[in-house]
Amino acid sequence: MAITSHDVARLAGVSQATVSRALRGDPRVTSATLDRVRRAAEALNYVPSEAGRSLSTRTSRRVGVVISDLTNPFYPHLVGPLHDELEQLDYRMMLFTERTESAIATQRLLDRSIDGVVLATATLDSALPDELSRRGLPFVFLNRESANANADSAVVDNEKGGRLVAAELARLGHRSVAIISGPQDTSTGRDRELGFRLGLAEAGIALTERHIQRGPFDFDTGYRALPVLWAQEPRPTAVFCGNDVTAIGALNAALRHGIRIPEELTLVGFDDIPMAGWESFDLTTVRHDLHEMARTSARMLAERIDHPDLAPRRTLFTPELVRRGTHAELAEEEQCTT
Amino acid sequence: MAITSHDVARLAGVSQATVSRALRGDPRVTSATLDRVRRAAEALNYVPSEAGRSLSTRTSRRVGVVISDLTNPFYPHLVGPLHDELEQLDYRMMLFTERTESAIATQRLLDRSIDGVVLATATLDSALPDELSRRGLPFVFLNRESANANADSAVVDNEKGGRLVAAELARLGHRSVAIISGPQDTSTGRDRELGFRLGLAEAGIALTERHIQRGPFDFDTGYRALPVLWAQEPRPTAVFCGNDVTAIGALNAALRHGIRIPEELTLVGFDDIPMAGWESFDLTTVRHDLHEMARTSARMLAERIDHPDLAPRRTLFTPELVRRGTHAELAEEEQCTT
Repeated sequence: MAITSHDVARLAGVSQATVSRALRGDPRVTSATLDRVRRAAEALNYVPSEAGRSLSTRTSRRVGVVISDLTNPFYPHLVGPLHDELEQLDYRMMLFTERTESAIATQRLLDRSIDGVVLATATLDSALPDELSRRGLPFVFLNRESANANADSAVVDNEKGGRLVAAELARLGHRSVAIISGPQDTSTGRDRELGFRLGLAEAGIALTERHIQRGPFDFDTGYRALPVLWAQEPRPTAVFCGNDVTAIGALNAALRHGIRIPEELTLVGFDDIPMAGWESFDLTTVRHDLHEMARTSARMLAERIDHPDLAPRRTLFTPELVRRGTHAELAEEEQCTT
Repeated sequence: MAITSHDVARLAGVSQATVSRALRGDPRVTSATLDRVRRAAEALNYVPSEAGRSLSTRTSRRVGVVISDLTNPFYPHLVGPLHDELEQLDYRMMLFTERTESAIATQRLLDRSIDGVVLATATLDSALPDELSRRGLPFVFLNRESANANADSAVVDNEKGGRLVAAELARLGHRSVAIISGPQDTSTGRDRELGFRLGLAEAGIALTERHIQRGPFDFDTGYRALPVLWAQEPRPTAVFCGNDVTAIGALNAALRHGIRIPEELTLVGFDDIPMAGWESFDLTTVRHDLHEMARTSARMLAERIDHPDLAPRRTLFTPELVRRGTHAELAEEEQCTT
């Protein structure tokens, strides 16, 4: 016969309710009692049934994390710290890696076996946040936000990051600049481009239509867009890429087409993922604290679960420029020709 | 009041048991009945509770996937196809990303809210497989195996892969060869090195102790080991790396120390992850079908869950050498000096 929490309670000399509380880490249980319960559970080789616990307490201590593209090298860097912080908060991470935030994903999140959701790949017009709000399932935006204003978020100041890049390119003397931007239905894609445009405008530099390429935040976008930009007249002397993965795609296209970086072309990324610092890339980029952003989102969600009536909060991380090897000052003669 | 399956049953004009069966995809339900139940559930905005379903059917349709290092660019390439294949088999993927296969992980896997486990980062001496066997929780090894012989596995023929590299280096005229190997407590680390040694021995080439470096299958291992090998006497003219990520670390160290690849040093990896084909690396490596290996492990696990008494099976994928830009024939004068 299977061992139950009643057997553990009998051996430990406490009530069954105390066993339940102790094993789910309720702070009201004293450490002495916790120790007694744990030793009894170990002696009996008892493993608490999560399904049973879920029905009896109405919480599962599980948090869903929605990431639509895990093979993008950016996202695994969020998953590690998210996992660790959720652990510390006594939540288990359940990863939803659906390709899109489809109806299936919504349905799955809404079934009541999770206590809250971290949305890491939301689009601005995503229906999911409203749906979660309507059903009363707590959630937090991580890295990307949607137009849903009444929600918690942990994000970088993307507009400021875009401005930093524009100011740097202006300082280096570039006048013919281009962008390989992310999707305009994401807050990261939209706001990085917006900040870049505003910063260029302040420096008196125009960003023309033919110098704008857009696509998903992936390697292929940069790889395909760079030769297109290179073929434009006037040719750009600097390209801002919506994220590091895209910039690395552009760097590889430059290698393929014999475009010398940074002598002929300045390239700047965004995020400062570890790969950006590798010698192969040595990418000038915009750094923000990925780990702390992920950890913050976990803490915000835990607070939201415990206090559903808190006012919505937005934690904004400040970006900074990291100067490595893919940018250069424009030679004076080139400045004159543009 | 919350909508229950009884409400759906009433509206659809079927029994509550039929509703349960229909919504979990039981093949005994006719498509006409399924359609009726689905429309009733939609009309009532009914979301089945997984926790309730779990207790009533004793299965959760959840599969745990244990991966200890998701930031290693290798593993995300397994997660995507695993997720998709499990979806098709009507399982949901639950990712366990503990840093090690610790006691916590074991405890979590053993609680009965999952139906089976895919182990992607097992070590040879891991206690987890035996523990799962003892508790009767079905599992399958993916990519790495342990010494536990009585289990299903989907793996590449690592020994053969190592032999392919040895034969190629011999063919190119290399005599002073080195290895940056993976951990010897993993089947991939052990068997790739074993195959390499056997292949070298057949070609009459000795692998000396000073030409062996080992470490985790990551970037840093290759990055640190390459200068150590380069400082040896005799200097190696070719280095086999235990996987692509390690080889990319070695390539970056070569860039840093001004070692020209492949003119001064041949480098070969293993796995052929997409990054290996990027222009920045253009890595000669050993290819195997990562996607199909991951999908196969999901199918094997689903069969194991349905048929616990099947004899254990091992699906072995055949590797092949992919010749790109990091290998070269040894110049004749160099051959004479070694």
